[in-house]
Amino acid sequence: MSAEAIIAELAKKARIAARTLSTATGAERKSALEVIAQAIESRSAEILAANEIDMQNARKEQMHPQMQDRLLLTAERIKGIAGGARQVAALADPLGITLRESTLPNGLHLQQVSVPFGVIGMVYEARPNVTVDAAVILLMSGNAALLRGSSTARNSNEILVNVMRDALRTTKISPEVIQLVPSEDRATTKALLTARGKVDLVIPRGSAALIRMVVDESTVPTIETGAGVCHVYIDEFADIQKALPILINSKTHRPSVCNAAETLLVHKAIAPTFLPMALKALSDAGVILHTDATAQKVAEKFNIAATIATDENWSTEYGVLEMNVGVVDSVDAAADHIAQYGTNHTEAIVTEDKAAAARFIALSDCAAVMVNTSTRFTDGEQMGFGAEIGISNQKLHARGPMGLEAMTTTTWIVTGTGQIRS
Amino acid sequence: MSAEAIIAELAKKARIAARTLSTATGAERKSALEVIAQAIESRSAEILAANEIDMQNARKEQMHPQMQDRLLLTAERIKGIAGGARQVAALADPLGITLRESTLPNGLHLQQVSVPFGVIGMVYEARPNVTVDAAVILLMSGNAALLRGSSTARNSNEILVNVMRDALRTTKISPEVIQLVPSEDRATTKALLTARGKVDLVIPRGSAALIRMVVDESTVPTIETGAGVCHVYIDEFADIQKALPILINSKTHRPSVCNAAETLLVHKAIAPTFLPMALKALSDAGVILHTDATAQKVAEKFNIAATIATDENWSTEYGVLEMNVGVVDSVDAAADHIAQYGTNHTEAIVTEDKAAAARFIALSDCAAVMVNTSTRFTDGEQMGFGAEIGISNQKLHARGPMGLEAMTTTTWIVTGTGQIRS
Repeated sequence: MSAEAIIAELAKKARIAARTLSTATGAERKSALEVIAQAIESRSAEILAANEIDMQNARKEQMHPQMQDRLLLTAERIKGIAGGARQVAALADPLGITLRESTLPNGLHLQQVSVPFGVIGMVYEARPNVTVDAAVILLMSGNAALLRGSSTARNSNEILVNVMRDALRTTKISPEVIQLVPSEDRATTKALLTARGKVDLVIPRGSAALIRMVVDESTVPTIETGAGVCHVYIDEFADIQKALPILINSKTHRPSVCNAAETLLVHKAIAPTFLPMALKALSDAGVILHTDATAQKVAEKFNIAATIATDENWSTEYGVLEMNVGVVDSVDAAADHIAQYGTNHTEAIVTEDKAAAARFIALSDCAAVMVNTSTRFTDGEQMGFGAEIGISNQKLHARGPMGLEAMTTTTWIVTGTGQIRS
Repeated sequence: MSAEAIIAELAKKARIAARTLSTATGAERKSALEVIAQAIESRSAEILAANEIDMQNARKEQMHPQMQDRLLLTAERIKGIAGGARQVAALADPLGITLRESTLPNGLHLQQVSVPFGVIGMVYEARPNVTVDAAVILLMSGNAALLRGSSTARNSNEILVNVMRDALRTTKISPEVIQLVPSEDRATTKALLTARGKVDLVIPRGSAALIRMVVDESTVPTIETGAGVCHVYIDEFADIQKALPILINSKTHRPSVCNAAETLLVHKAIAPTFLPMALKALSDAGVILHTDATAQKVAEKFNIAATIATDENWSTEYGVLEMNVGVVDSVDAAADHIAQYGTNHTEAIVTEDKAAAARFIALSDCAAVMVNTSTRFTDGEQMGFGAEIGISNQKLHARGPMGLEAMTTTTWIVTGTGQIRS
């Protein structure tokens, strides 16, 4: 069977099964998640055994240790996965919410109501926990899931999907709402991305290369997640006691993730005080520095190693302990720099001046602006969403951390008593 | 200059100019629209003269009379265009609305606020009024506009854009927020659709072929507008007094538009009473009929001409006085038919039974469900939006009629007092 035929068949099964979700109550969807959580816990041994096969292959193929760690499941991690499903079940039902409502002069009653998308494809990389995390978020938001994980996690993903499907057999919800897309052949990804009309939405999660490929090749609507060249701007009127911890936290707390900062911009008026301590603190934390000419002079004066930042540096999402440092003349100049090099993800300003913060917000064009706090807070769990399917880095539909609500669309229900247009 | 370079330059100018919108108040944007409306009225003669050149070319090239009518501007139509701008100015400002707000246990204050997209491209066909309609909606929602109209309306579009830009020169808003994309060369459309990162969103308006091309070729996010194979389902418990006018209105009121109905489905229990009068009324209204075997028998009995509907018939958006008619066993069977042949636009049910209506709504997967009213009400103006940039026929972002609100995205503003992640 061709990859297109495989996807068409899975999508068709998923579409039909999705009706058991769109007609299920919130309580029924919640209890299905609890059944899934229990099954994952009780079949932990099977899951670990399957994962061990993937790990053996990974070791044989000398997979990078960091990637091996992502692939690895442990009893503890499996408990965490089950706990995640329970956490989603505890959230407010995102379906059937009336978003807008009005009665027109002709008596027609309008309601805009949240409804599921239908069939959503996920394309992701090594981590097998995404298989369950994504499935439960999609199920709770009424969507059938087409899961295309990595072939390196094949055995782990297969058992996890089987466990979830078996669990659903005891509920009113069809097990066919969760479909694992075969990962042996790369062609299934391409087929998923072009299954227009059969799949309603595709969300990629993984490396920048994966996301770019999905966005470029997809004719199905996508939500781009990922890339973050985030900035921390220390304003003229910053409180230095706040500025330094925010900077260090933004850069070093978890440098590999998209909401970590890559560039520090400092207002020239505060630079003489702030830059020496900032450069020293970053350097002490093991951060490799790339500076503009002004910051370079400060670094030299204090014997801190730093190379001159190139255009490539300013544009790079390092993902490691490496940072660019520049000095700017004003809030507007900081915004100009960010407009040129940023990726519209998260930008932070540290200032005690409300007008400066307002100007920075108005000139920023990003998913989240942080005022006197760390860029690391652009995160569904930190922001109280309870669950996150990813962080949208596009403007269409959902922007920023996406929880259950972002996995719904709307429909208009127009109720009349025979009105016609004249 | 290559088409890519032209678009890059226009988009860059637009992006910079858009800052004069994102920092303008709602009152400033509203008064800019009033200035535009006045300029359109006072320079009516120039606009008519330019349009006459387009009309001469159209006549020379023997353009279809219906297309010529779309291209034509009259003093009356120009007044209507200016009036449309004033109508948009009278609407509530869609920017700066707080959509969600909360304070986290760690003291961080979260606000999700509506903000503009930035730079939006419109790709459309002959009608020059779209040039102004789109520009004013985008301006009011804080977005710069890249307008790619048809080359057949070139002179009309040029003068309309010049009039709007000249008008903006007297305001705080940069005239560069409105950019006309040269239409002599088809390559500019392709360049617009692939200006990823430079253009935030592209909206096509026009024929199904244009929309399909935009959706297929674009790497910039798009909102698909258009195609509607809409159904009217007459339930077992329909009030026939309502059903007949709703059917006739849905099909014949304006058959060329996307919210016109193409297929009538009738519950078998009501078919003996309803079908004869429905077929006769449709036939009397000049509607060509395509029926399933059951409806065919009724048509024959009453000497009403009808061919057997093929799969192609059931899938066709006629856009003219032509309709499919079928008999179904249940609400679920109607929903199955609609799932197979519909385009997720607008579906109507006529019933006095609330359970049947609820079931139909739950099984429908469309932008709007009409209960006891005409499909023709899926329309921004009819629904009280005051203005409409198009009807979204996709699930991502906005679904159904799109007014000012649909032309905004959101940003999260997170305000702290030095919080960092631990």
